[in-house]
Amino acid sequence: MSAPVKRSPKAAQTIEGGRFMVVGGASLVGSATCEELLAKGAAEVRLFDNFSFGSGEAIAHLKDDKRVTVVQGDILKLHQLLAATEGLDGLVHLAAFMTLSMDRDPWAGIDVNMRGVQNVLEACRANKVAKVVFASSNAVYGYGPGVKGDLVEETPFHSVGAPPAAILYGASKIVGEQLCRDAHRRHGQDYVILRYSTVYGERQHYRAANALYIVETHDAVKRGERPVVIGDGSETKHFVYVGDLARANRMALESDATDVAINTSGPEPVTTLELVTMVAEISGRPDLTAEKREPDPTKVRLTSGGAFRIDHAAAKDAIGWQPEVGMREGLARLLAWRDRAAG
Amino acid sequence: MSAPVKRSPKAAQTIEGGRFMVVGGASLVGSATCEELLAKGAAEVRLFDNFSFGSGEAIAHLKDDKRVTVVQGDILKLHQLLAATEGLDGLVHLAAFMTLSMDRDPWAGIDVNMRGVQNVLEACRANKVAKVVFASSNAVYGYGPGVKGDLVEETPFHSVGAPPAAILYGASKIVGEQLCRDAHRRHGQDYVILRYSTVYGERQHYRAANALYIVETHDAVKRGERPVVIGDGSETKHFVYVGDLARANRMALESDATDVAINTSGPEPVTTLELVTMVAEISGRPDLTAEKREPDPTKVRLTSGGAFRIDHAAAKDAIGWQPEVGMREGLARLLAWRDRAAG
Repeated sequence: MSAPVKRSPKAAQTIEGGRFMVVGGASLVGSATCEELLAKGAAEVRLFDNFSFGSGEAIAHLKDDKRVTVVQGDILKLHQLLAATEGLDGLVHLAAFMTLSMDRDPWAGIDVNMRGVQNVLEACRANKVAKVVFASSNAVYGYGPGVKGDLVEETPFHSVGAPPAAILYGASKIVGEQLCRDAHRRHGQDYVILRYSTVYGERQHYRAANALYIVETHDAVKRGERPVVIGDGSETKHFVYVGDLARANRMALESDATDVAINTSGPEPVTTLELVTMVAEISGRPDLTAEKREPDPTKVRLTSGGAFRIDHAAAKDAIGWQPEVGMREGLARLLAWRDRAAG
Repeated sequence: MSAPVKRSPKAAQTIEGGRFMVVGGASLVGSATCEELLAKGAAEVRLFDNFSFGSGEAIAHLKDDKRVTVVQGDILKLHQLLAATEGLDGLVHLAAFMTLSMDRDPWAGIDVNMRGVQNVLEACRANKVAKVVFASSNAVYGYGPGVKGDLVEETPFHSVGAPPAAILYGASKIVGEQLCRDAHRRHGQDYVILRYSTVYGERQHYRAANALYIVETHDAVKRGERPVVIGDGSETKHFVYVGDLARANRMALESDATDVAINTSGPEPVTTLELVTMVAEISGRPDLTAEKREPDPTKVRLTSGGAFRIDHAAAKDAIGWQPEVGMREGLARLLAWRDRAAG
């Protein structure tokens, strides 16, 4: 089916003693990736972020490590990226507008998700950064009734019935991926694209449309209220635990794989109703069952055509990765973190 | 299957006495659209072009008409569009990088095909231009083995096996379409998206990957050489005659349809081999049969998965349009124009 994965010795970066940058570093995935690289002995990890979405809180626990440098910068300013990428062995590019922010400001979202990728790739070319890991998304398979069954790397982009912001987001990730391919073709830039499914985990924020159910359900049951599900709760979501993604980023840097795009999803999908029920159970309130509500037509909703599963077999083949943390375990970690953070 | 077409009396523009602008006007489709609008009694037609691809030649025959104004401007400069769109009833937005130019300069291509659309829509909002016709492309169905059978408006975007520039082009048109939808949703901008199939006709240039076979075959047989076909010539192409598209643009302006995207393709698809043979026959050299050559891997090629046909039934339903000029007739007109132009 798929072509064999391209491999090149120069694509493989050793983490121990290496120098890396995470663009969009002050984020859920960014801070976890930084932890992972530090744990594996990286000599330096730079966290590049403009702090428009990222927060100092997300990386506060990392700042005491002498190997960590926080760079406040904007990926739309090429000169800032050029300065920040000097001497790097590898770069993980996470910074992006997601669907909700794309809906608020598509003008800026297109800039960040497309020109931003061009600037990052241009800086890596200029400074000979050997390996780029680009965070794409299962949004490249789109939304709406066409999205169902097993989503593999060859699945086309469906958009009928989806809101403009979701399609813009998915298309922007398709563009970002092709800019990586183009950089490989033009000047041999080694890269791995990871198509993240919906991320969740410690330091979960309120910006991701799909993960909102987790934090909103947790908030509700702690107030003693029933969690709310929009519709009948039967639609599929396929999450991936943030620590598993951090490991995927690190393994993509280490791997000799290049010029490839692979799915990184959790062990199994869940339905919204299963998710909400699980959160209530872990929170000790299994009695607070989900209340089903009609959709609000003014809000961005992400729909699919029914049961789907994001296949991650290719990731094992390409970079040796597979998810390790199941949904219940990952949720327990996330909720414990939220309880600790709330004091 | 499809939702019923949205209709609104204010979306319908009367051509007679109306004021219109064609962005990317100094082009194959632009000049034909200008002719069509003039023939139907438009009071004014502005041709906005930066002349980077467009040419003075393409519109030389129009300049003597007092109703025509040529505006040299750049869609990346919003203030130029703001000045040029004052007092308009409708606008046809054609300006874009196609696959070959996207391959040469993806940086500029993304600017023109995305930011350019945003600027055009912003200017139309500011100056209350009632109707926008946006030239999209069957590239929104993508390329590669997934593209086969009947391509209808709901067909997803396929990209496996396609070169980066082709995917960037297709994705840029998906983005442009969604920006129109977003403008409709946010501030009621009426628009019709026409998904052009491959255009051909009088004033054919060398910039469109798919139409190259026509002009290159014509050039070859006039030199007494056999035309060259890359591969076995069995892949499908679905052309549309430029005059049919000019009519579609005009009918989209006139129609009360809004917030809709429709295919505008010619009567029937052809294979590359049929096309090349037809051009040789019309040129009076049926003896010069096609010579099949192996593909050059360094060149951008647009492939599909086999026989496909771009369905245009929805266009009849939405704006009353269907193609009128068959491939042999259209080719005869194109080749006669080339022979006249060559003197």
